[in-house]
Amino acid sequence: MITADSKLTQTVLDACDALACHSEVVGEITRTYLCPTTQEVHTHLGGWAGRLGMTTRIDAVGNLRSRLESKDPNAPTLYIGSHLDTVPNAGRYDGILGVVMGYALVEALGGQELPYSIEVLGFSEEEGVRFGVSFIGSRALVGTADELLAALDKEGRSVQDAIEAYGLNPQELALARLTGQSLGYLEFHIEQGPVLQDLEASVGVVSAIVGQDRLNLEFVGRASHAGTTPMHLRRDALAAAARFMVAAEDLARHTPGLVATVGIVEVKPGAGNVIPGEVHCSLDIRHEHDEVRRRALKELLDGAEREAQARQVALKVTPKMSEAATPMSGQFKALLHQAAEELELPHPELVSGAGHDAQIMAQEVPAAMLFVRSPNALSHHPDEMVNPEDVTAALRVGARFLERLAGTVGA
Amino acid sequence: MITADSKLTQTVLDACDALACHSEVVGEITRTYLCPTTQEVHTHLGGWAGRLGMTTRIDAVGNLRSRLESKDPNAPTLYIGSHLDTVPNAGRYDGILGVVMGYALVEALGGQELPYSIEVLGFSEEEGVRFGVSFIGSRALVGTADELLAALDKEGRSVQDAIEAYGLNPQELALARLTGQSLGYLEFHIEQGPVLQDLEASVGVVSAIVGQDRLNLEFVGRASHAGTTPMHLRRDALAAAARFMVAAEDLARHTPGLVATVGIVEVKPGAGNVIPGEVHCSLDIRHEHDEVRRRALKELLDGAEREAQARQVALKVTPKMSEAATPMSGQFKALLHQAAEELELPHPELVSGAGHDAQIMAQEVPAAMLFVRSPNALSHHPDEMVNPEDVTAALRVGARFLERLAGTVGA
Repeated sequence: MITADSKLTQTVLDACDALACHSEVVGEITRTYLCPTTQEVHTHLGGWAGRLGMTTRIDAVGNLRSRLESKDPNAPTLYIGSHLDTVPNAGRYDGILGVVMGYALVEALGGQELPYSIEVLGFSEEEGVRFGVSFIGSRALVGTADELLAALDKEGRSVQDAIEAYGLNPQELALARLTGQSLGYLEFHIEQGPVLQDLEASVGVVSAIVGQDRLNLEFVGRASHAGTTPMHLRRDALAAAARFMVAAEDLARHTPGLVATVGIVEVKPGAGNVIPGEVHCSLDIRHEHDEVRRRALKELLDGAEREAQARQVALKVTPKMSEAATPMSGQFKALLHQAAEELELPHPELVSGAGHDAQIMAQEVPAAMLFVRSPNALSHHPDEMVNPEDVTAALRVGARFLERLAGTVGA
Repeated sequence: MITADSKLTQTVLDACDALACHSEVVGEITRTYLCPTTQEVHTHLGGWAGRLGMTTRIDAVGNLRSRLESKDPNAPTLYIGSHLDTVPNAGRYDGILGVVMGYALVEALGGQELPYSIEVLGFSEEEGVRFGVSFIGSRALVGTADELLAALDKEGRSVQDAIEAYGLNPQELALARLTGQSLGYLEFHIEQGPVLQDLEASVGVVSAIVGQDRLNLEFVGRASHAGTTPMHLRRDALAAAARFMVAAEDLARHTPGLVATVGIVEVKPGAGNVIPGEVHCSLDIRHEHDEVRRRALKELLDGAEREAQARQVALKVTPKMSEAATPMSGQFKALLHQAAEELELPHPELVSGAGHDAQIMAQEVPAAMLFVRSPNALSHHPDEMVNPEDVTAALRVGARFLERLAGTVGA
């Protein structure tokens, strides 16, 4: 019986508070890839790992990796982790909570034997702030980080430079790869959205990490006089674009799980008495099933083309990003649901609308995520919060998960 | 019989070319209120007036006023005119054509006697460029220019300063007022829109100058994550605003004569992966009947409020301008139609979607406008054009109008 009590919750919250002090900007929580204060974070967590009987190393891209070895040298490994870097002026839980939860669950074990090893992963980079590329940390584990080494930051320094300046050896990148038998990867993370709060649930099981397309649309009609140009002689770029915006909302509302967002709109020439000749806008569309997303995207772009043509407006579409969806492991999801059910906790399943390290790890091992409620959906903000009772719920589900997982290894 | 031949058309086009040289900006046609080159324009046209037997004065706000006196000292006056100022980097016909047409029609008379005097009006200011207030010229004739004297330009100089600097006396403003018996005011003007070109007509009779409302709308919802915020938990300010834009186009298309334009849209925070928290946009709505415009405006704002509320978005509406419509004189319109009919010219009736001096003059006298086709609807642009055959048509309609009007005075 692994016990996670309210004292352990306090340990988690205290650790998040302590790590929040190690920032590269005074008065903020800002910790981009391999900034000097990363070392203080590693020291803090490495010390905790040592007290828990774990051995810690920093791999070639700067990931913190603490192992609790099973007595059986052939035992498989369960990975638990998240990232230790932050966005600029961040909160104290995004990423960090998932790493701290890993150590806390080892602490909850209290030396009890499990039929698998545990490796807690503190990924060095997930947010993509410094180099404009994301997931440098987790990509090293699945062998796709090499192609990122040449990426440059604003000062023109490469990822490789940053690794060497931090005192690591990029030649040892291969040693960061996952090895040996793996049970899978479990990531605790704040939801960063309003769903669990709306459902009044402490935690939720992630069904999949959405796939997404991001595009730019450029509508070009003809600017003309708002007073002297009758409706039937207009080539109003905004009139066409507005139909597209409305269609995006309508389709997303009527397609379960789909989200579609127009976040950027620029109108030219931009005078109250001039019919818009040009509109540039963005589309961000996400769903947990690629087929649903692709079909919706095609429907929206076909409709935009029709509305544009009907107004003698030209439409140019430029894709900016396209990422496939990542379903979470069925076995791990089932274990998380079972654990929460046994603890009489609500355990809704929800999609992750944002990207996470779990989508990278899922390329090689079964991966799962447990979301922790985000009060007011606030994230990427200094006021980012967690409720202590929600952390307790996550710890209890995590502890029960470890037990149930042990049962499957034994079987 | 008053004859307007192609030689007179050339005279009109040559005069417009000559006046285009008097600019305050080299290489452009730019002539704002009482700029020094206004004097050259007055000299040019005053000289022509003298050769036609007219007497010319400059009134207190700088209007050029040339009278062809009837032999009967009690004869009423027909006013013909438009404005001599321009927008920055303008074309050579907007306004000027209507003034030149006045002199050209007097030339067409060739000394024939009419039972009325003719006063050609070259208004000094209509565009509102220098002082941000429009119609300084025509407002002096109807007695509403006094309140404009304190308006300031960008250098902090007032209208009164400008008048004095030009060598005129603002104390004599009352002498600019219309006096004596008036038959009415006739203004020739390029259409500045695509309607006559679309109808393949040289000229058109203006039914009314539209009334218009201009407003700013501010939609305030809540910015949130485009991936983690499901559709039903969004407060998307742009989604509400887009419904409003679509409704504006729909209502205007289904309401004969109505035009509605959203020309400004600003979206905050303006990132592709962030749901818009704020949208500011404009509405410009115009119709020849105030009741139709007001009803349409109410319908649009009520709808906008409903769409906002449905998304928990706050809507704030700020009126920026509201102007009543000005119907043109029934008698003058009938005479213009009759003239064109007799000349076997198409004579469609159309609304003026832009403001003109005729709407000011209509406050005191019967007023009418004859529009001349604008090739490609181009205006407020150096490439502004007129077709010579359309000028001929306008001259012929004008000459026949003078004859038919004489018939009504004689009766």
